[in-house]
Amino acid sequence: MATKHVYTFGDKQAEGNASMKNLLGGKGANLAEMNLIGVPVPPGFTITTEVCTLYYSKGRDQVVELIKPEVEAAVKNIENIMGTRFGDKENPCLMSVRSGARASMPGMMDTVLNLGLNDRAVEGIAKKTGNERFAWDSYRRFVQMYGDVVLDLKPASKEDIDPFEEIIDQLKEEKGVNLDTELTTDDLKELVKRFKKAVKDNTGRDFPEDPWEQLWGSVMSVFGSWMNKRAILYRKLNNIPDEWGTAVNVQAMVFGNMGQKSGTGVAFTRDAATGEDIFNGEYLINAQGEDVVAGIRTPQQITKEGSIRWAKLANVSEEDRKNNFPSLEEVMPTVYEELDKTQQKLEDHYADMQDLEFTIQDEKLWLLQTRNGKRTGAAMVKIAMDMFKANKIDKQTALMRVEPNKLDELLHPVFDTNALKAAKVVAKGLPASPGAATGQVVFHADEAEEWAADGKHVILVRIETSPEDLSGMNVANGILTARGGMTSHAAVVARGMGKCCVSGAGSVKISYKDRTLTSDGVTFKEGDWISLNGSTGEVYEGKIQTQEPELSGDFGELMEMADSFAKMKVRTNADTPHDSTVAREFGAQGIGLCRTEHMFFGEGKIQAMREMILAKDVDGRKKALGKLLPIQREDFEGIFEAMHDLPVTVRLLDPPLHEFVPHEEKEQQEMADLMGISLKEVQAKIDELAEFNPMLGHRGCRLGNTYPEISEMQARAIIEAAINLKKKGVKTYPEIMIPLTGTLAEMKMQEDIVRSTAEKVFEETGEKIDYMVGTMIEVPRAALTADEIAKSAEFFSFGTNDLTQMTFGYSRDDAGKFLPVYLQKNILKVDPFQALDQEGVGQLVKMAVKKGRKTRKNIKLGICGEHGGEPSSVEFCHRVGLNYVSCSPYRVPIARLAAAQAVVRKKMEKAAKKAAKKAKKANKKKK
Amino acid sequence: MATKHVYTFGDKQAEGNASMKNLLGGKGANLAEMNLIGVPVPPGFTITTEVCTLYYSKGRDQVVELIKPEVEAAVKNIENIMGTRFGDKENPCLMSVRSGARASMPGMMDTVLNLGLNDRAVEGIAKKTGNERFAWDSYRRFVQMYGDVVLDLKPASKEDIDPFEEIIDQLKEEKGVNLDTELTTDDLKELVKRFKKAVKDNTGRDFPEDPWEQLWGSVMSVFGSWMNKRAILYRKLNNIPDEWGTAVNVQAMVFGNMGQKSGTGVAFTRDAATGEDIFNGEYLINAQGEDVVAGIRTPQQITKEGSIRWAKLANVSEEDRKNNFPSLEEVMPTVYEELDKTQQKLEDHYADMQDLEFTIQDEKLWLLQTRNGKRTGAAMVKIAMDMFKANKIDKQTALMRVEPNKLDELLHPVFDTNALKAAKVVAKGLPASPGAATGQVVFHADEAEEWAADGKHVILVRIETSPEDLSGMNVANGILTARGGMTSHAAVVARGMGKCCVSGAGSVKISYKDRTLTSDGVTFKEGDWISLNGSTGEVYEGKIQTQEPELSGDFGELMEMADSFAKMKVRTNADTPHDSTVAREFGAQGIGLCRTEHMFFGEGKIQAMREMILAKDVDGRKKALGKLLPIQREDFEGIFEAMHDLPVTVRLLDPPLHEFVPHEEKEQQEMADLMGISLKEVQAKIDELAEFNPMLGHRGCRLGNTYPEISEMQARAIIEAAINLKKKGVKTYPEIMIPLTGTLAEMKMQEDIVRSTAEKVFEETGEKIDYMVGTMIEVPRAALTADEIAKSAEFFSFGTNDLTQMTFGYSRDDAGKFLPVYLQKNILKVDPFQALDQEGVGQLVKMAVKKGRKTRKNIKLGICGEHGGEPSSVEFCHRVGLNYVSCSPYRVPIARLAAAQAVVRKKMEKAAKKAAKKAKKANKKKK
Repeated sequence: MATKHVYTFGDKQAEGNASMKNLLGGKGANLAEMNLIGVPVPPGFTITTEVCTLYYSKGRDQVVELIKPEVEAAVKNIENIMGTRFGDKENPCLMSVRSGARASMPGMMDTVLNLGLNDRAVEGIAKKTGNERFAWDSYRRFVQMYGDVVLDLKPASKEDIDPFEEIIDQLKEEKGVNLDTELTTDDLKELVKRFKKAVKDNTGRDFPEDPWEQLWGSVMSVFGSWMNKRAILYRKLNNIPDEWGTAVNVQAMVFGNMGQKSGTGVAFTRDAATGEDIFNGEYLINAQGEDVVAGIRTPQQITKEGSIRWAKLANVSEEDRKNNFPSLEEVMPTVYEELDKTQQKLEDHYADMQDLEFTIQDEKLWLLQTRNGKRTGAAMVKIAMDMFKANKIDKQTALMRVEPNKLDELLHPVFDTNALKAAKVVAKGLPASPGAATGQVVFHADEAEEWAADGKHVILVRIETSPEDLSGMNVANGILTARGGMTSHAAVVARGMGKCCVSGAGSVKISYKDRTLTSDGVTFKEGDWISLNGSTGEVYEGKIQTQEPELSGDFGELMEMADSFAKMKVRTNADTPHDSTVAREFGAQGIGLCRTEHMFFGEGKIQAMREMILAKDVDGRKKALGKLLPIQREDFEGIFEAMHDLPVTVRLLDPPLHEFVPHEEKEQQEMADLMGISLKEVQAKIDELAEFNPMLGHRGCRLGNTYPEISEMQARAIIEAAINLKKKGVKTYPEIMIPLTGTLAEMKMQEDIVRSTAEKVFEETGEKIDYMVGTMIEVPRAALTADEIAKSAEFFSFGTNDLTQMTFGYSRDDAGKFLPVYLQKNILKVDPFQALDQEGVGQLVKMAVKKGRKTRKNIKLGICGEHGGEPSSVEFCHRVGLNYVSCSPYRVPIARLAAAQAVVRKKMEKAAKKAAKKAKKANKKKK
Repeated sequence: MATKHVYTFGDKQAEGNASMKNLLGGKGANLAEMNLIGVPVPPGFTITTEVCTLYYSKGRDQVVELIKPEVEAAVKNIENIMGTRFGDKENPCLMSVRSGARASMPGMMDTVLNLGLNDRAVEGIAKKTGNERFAWDSYRRFVQMYGDVVLDLKPASKEDIDPFEEIIDQLKEEKGVNLDTELTTDDLKELVKRFKKAVKDNTGRDFPEDPWEQLWGSVMSVFGSWMNKRAILYRKLNNIPDEWGTAVNVQAMVFGNMGQKSGTGVAFTRDAATGEDIFNGEYLINAQGEDVVAGIRTPQQITKEGSIRWAKLANVSEEDRKNNFPSLEEVMPTVYEELDKTQQKLEDHYADMQDLEFTIQDEKLWLLQTRNGKRTGAAMVKIAMDMFKANKIDKQTALMRVEPNKLDELLHPVFDTNALKAAKVVAKGLPASPGAATGQVVFHADEAEEWAADGKHVILVRIETSPEDLSGMNVANGILTARGGMTSHAAVVARGMGKCCVSGAGSVKISYKDRTLTSDGVTFKEGDWISLNGSTGEVYEGKIQTQEPELSGDFGELMEMADSFAKMKVRTNADTPHDSTVAREFGAQGIGLCRTEHMFFGEGKIQAMREMILAKDVDGRKKALGKLLPIQREDFEGIFEAMHDLPVTVRLLDPPLHEFVPHEEKEQQEMADLMGISLKEVQAKIDELAEFNPMLGHRGCRLGNTYPEISEMQARAIIEAAINLKKKGVKTYPEIMIPLTGTLAEMKMQEDIVRSTAEKVFEETGEKIDYMVGTMIEVPRAALTADEIAKSAEFFSFGTNDLTQMTFGYSRDDAGKFLPVYLQKNILKVDPFQALDQEGVGQLVKMAVKKGRKTRKNIKLGICGEHGGEPSSVEFCHRVGLNYVSCSPYRVPIARLAAAQAVVRKKMEKAAKKAAKKAKKANKKKK
């Protein structure tokens, strides 16, 4: 245990630094660091995490006694720097007290602001700010916050009202006003009185007037909050040890609303929208931080250049600008100069674009915060590549600077920012497939096609989509569904097409009969305009202009850089030559999942498929399959050709057969006529196909094993297609994938069908090609018995959509009923259909990798679930040692970047470990 | 490698014995053993498994050369004993050649019978048997079998016809006959000719006349069949190493149809129906084995006593009996005496009731086979206890002698055997709940109640049942459903009630509208009589008399003996005081699963439940829950009282809410009226509740976590019930069980609700009780993260029904579409809903046990899935170390016995291991 417990900072000096996070917590270490690099931040001090541990072992009194001298010295230091005095009537020093643990635990522990106010100091503040109401409002807020946090005047239960709010409500009723802001300064004074009385009544003691008592109370209360229920649960869920403890940061408060020589603002070291290297930001004189963002006053630009540009856009004359909206550069040139230097220093120090908050109190600049600035995807790429080219960061850092998911923005249309401002959100669903779309509402796929053929822009609106809607989805600008999750049919297909989709918008009521959709009280008829933001899930009323994306050279360079790091290949999920070509352009190195079921829809195909399903016996099925064979073969030829020289994983028929049968009587009658049987017979067969839980029903290889002739036809179509192309000089690498395998015997039976069919075709054609037979791992049992299954399977592809469904027992089509509540109540931290659940589902993946390799050393391993395009999941795949990930075409760039980042991150961890080891060794030697 | 390759046996001498299974195979070792204990079996010899290995390493020729001298000597030995000669014209010796591996591989490898026949020997047989047709039929069968097995004249593919059958068909056509039996002796001679020609045409060589060539061909062919595809796959699936090889058994053939001094029969050392210690059996003079069972001739009794008893039952006069149906004891007293001694010897040797096959050839007795005799459940118990009491077997052996599943027969009604003979099976479903039932068909639960109230016996026939049918099921004699598997609602509930049920009878078409059921072309109207066998799944036309079971003293003694061995407790799944009492009488030591959802059905209850479901908000739900609280509390009081002093595990609400809402408009309207809302509103809510995959939907703790007020009400009802009983002096041990937990946070949230509710009740009543909070482990993720979940759960109960569904991805309600095919094609060896899949699901159970105990050393572990009453699963539970199993009341005795057997079996394994170790050590010393 060290003998130093308090670390001061201020006036560009500090006793701590950024490397002391364990002792000072994240916030404390960073505050020290900013001082060290010469940035003016409000002075203060950090009480170490070790003191927190002492608090729990020795108790409050001993701790106070132990650190009192150090704290008193540190307060003195603040007073000296600020030229104020703690509790002073004229020039009081106010302070904030905040927790700050090693790991960020946002909102879990206590904070006290405006500490140091009492009946005397409030007068000083009133005088200094010239704003009595502000002074008293701050005071009453302080009493309320202190009363709650330190003196524990809380509502008795969740249903009960806060005791302080109760007092406020009562006073408002007495005064006949509705809003807090309608209360006068005298009312606020009255409130302070009544608050204090409530404290006395409840605690039996007066509210502490002594700022020192306030300070000790607050500090100890922060330590105490380390062990509150919320914090304990949070740590349990995040694996943060209780022993770490929290530090406490005490800092002088500064005010930007102390008159015309004060002000506040926010600034970016580069342009957050475009990434251009231009210092920019906004400020207001005599204002508090929240005023800048509140929008009541028009914020002014920091730089003169920015100010002039702004005036042009806002149609403000130079005269007007100079008089009413001058830049900080013009108003306070000295302060501006310091700010400019500071921003440069901060960006250089952190080697990243910074987002700053500053306050000017009496012409003195204080930096309240600096952090890496949020930015658009385009800015992210530009800044990373600019800094790399300027030798400010290395390749690895540049790669790590781009959030893979943000690349989406670069690949899809976005709304025109100005047009969006006036738009009204009428519903919110899931951000199923990114981009922006605007169009006229249609409710049926065939009508979408007709309208689109007439040159209209349409949004296809469905309760849910099915494979029958494919061609309609293809021509629509966007798709909106009322039901279904992130991996519903609509979502998966739309992402594959790179088309904007909002799914599962629960508040949207659709009437196919009336051809209306109603949401939030607004009804849209067929032909009305709506707009969708597939990146946020928002649905807007009316037409909103969109902008097409444009890919910069930086993007291509970044992607190449990524590929030079990545160990995993990135493939794509694609079912058509078009999708395959798109994906190839985005850098896909093969197809990881070619679903064959989509091929059965469309003209001429679905009839033969239905004939097969409705057939009475094997012979009838074989006859219908005979019609499907040339169709499938042709489809495969197209895809194989588009993917020449690259592997293509073809999955045999997976969905239950009832997904292919007609559900409307008209079509059923057509089918009956075609097959020469009665409508009743058709309907009886369709009824027979219905299932209680289709997800767990007669599908996947269960179809191929009960109707081997289906697998046989598909295997033949694949092999024949490959041989036909071989004759044309096109190289193909088909990988035939068995879906939904759960046992070795299931896999073996399918393998036998495929291999014996291939042998037959080889014999018939006199040609041979290389091919592989493998399986999806998507049933938990397949993962558990992967060592067995690998006896037959040459490759595994993790179907983590279904694996997640079955491992959690969540139907993705129904989870909309509880998943949002689970996320909101923090029962789940993320939607497991979006990011792979590494704790649970991940165990099965790991297990299958290990067992699969044990049986078959060189087994090929990949993932083709939706997770294959989600960065944290891609990283997981790298860590468990997969050979490739596969995702929808528009996510290929994201996966490429994520795959590279996974490598870099592992490298960094390794380096960090090595450094830690070295430090430990050096430390030992020292001792 | 040993230098001895052939082991002879015959004339009560043998070179091998029962302990040499590895070398001689199971069959060979047993044939030797029978000789050693002095039982006359047809002589022969065994070629060792080592020779099989040599066959694969050295090839056929070397092997023949190596073993030739030994085989020739062994054949000589057979000739000497039998007084026949191999290939002789007068007195030929015929032989059988059969495989016999270490582990039984039924039907996997080749067999050749009647070997030694040729154009000369066939004359000898004709003369000896006085039956030329028999001789030539045997000959043509031999040529056919040898041609197929050894010379490989097989159909070209599965669709093609067998080449020999083709010849037979052609000849039949020429002769204008339909049946093989219509062919004359000359026709058979013609067939042999044509068969031989086919062999010549196909192989280019004559059919071998030389019996030695036949013998070597057959022996080598058996070795060759060890590596056929079927056998390799079988071994792979059964983990039998290829290196083991098979032995070959060559044995003299004997014939019971060689005249009036020959005969054949089957016999049991005790009565297989009752277990009484009476030697009994049937025989026929001048007959082959198959004649006895074929039913063309009336078989005669072996003992005189049995013969006289038979005559009485068959209404045959003593005169008639003596003349036409005399016993073997009367006809051949010497042979009978030898047979009687032999049966006694065999029973003594194997210390179990034996089922013998014997043949008398020329007044010489030959035992062809002895094996432990099949017997009824009642006989099983009686024989085991009789032998134990007679000191013939010890306690452990007695316990192991009873197949637990057979106990079912003792607990349920059975059909009168005679009445059954005339009955016609009209459908077959799954044996969902054992027993026999007869009654009049009704289609609706409420009508079942009415009819039963009128004193009628009814069978409730439904497409499927739902909880609404409960009271109707309760009064029915039996239940028949067209859909649903072994764990469907009907099956689970019926087993709980101990009521006969046949489920998933797919061929049964039910029309509720017409009130008819049609199957196999027969239509039954409401009121028609049908009968069900719930132990076999058979459905019979008409009324069949049933017999009530009666429990013997032996049964009770056996159960007590079982309990003295068992380490696991046996609990029951019960939801009512009645079921609880029944289970207690069967020896249940607590309730392992009390489903609360069934309590919500029935008068007055379902309305309040529906009100809760249809409520618009929390307040509405709370109001309805307020009505449910006293109802639930009362139900719990009843169950707790019935189970006083024993633990009761209560599972909180599990099924999705749509299972409770009315699905017929009439009831929906009633509901709407009751709640003062419109029918449309009710229907909209019901539509909203519909799910694509309800199994994976909004159910289990997902309900309790989205509507915490439900869990709160249930927790309150449980705790209040326990406290009310405490006041009455009744001890209770409630264990509150959270269903469908998948994450720690889910469990923790439910635990918090339960505990805080309990604390409130304790405070309100001033009383405290002990209780536990735990969870079902039924979602794969729960098993994978059991270490986390055990932080909150005090006990785990494995819900292996759902765990099986999710691990395999099989919906038990839909699996009927592929599971039967999978079982038939041997893709699955057993239905995983019947016997726990130890390879896959079992891994998750083991994992959860290990992880659960790691976090919480004394965690209580049990199983409450249907597997808890299935013997192989019970054994698994014992092996992985569960504390208890829980099953439906009528399976409690089965589980008790299975739990005891698990202990004994492990003991036996341990002893065997120890002995093997000792032997190995001794062996080493020797060397």
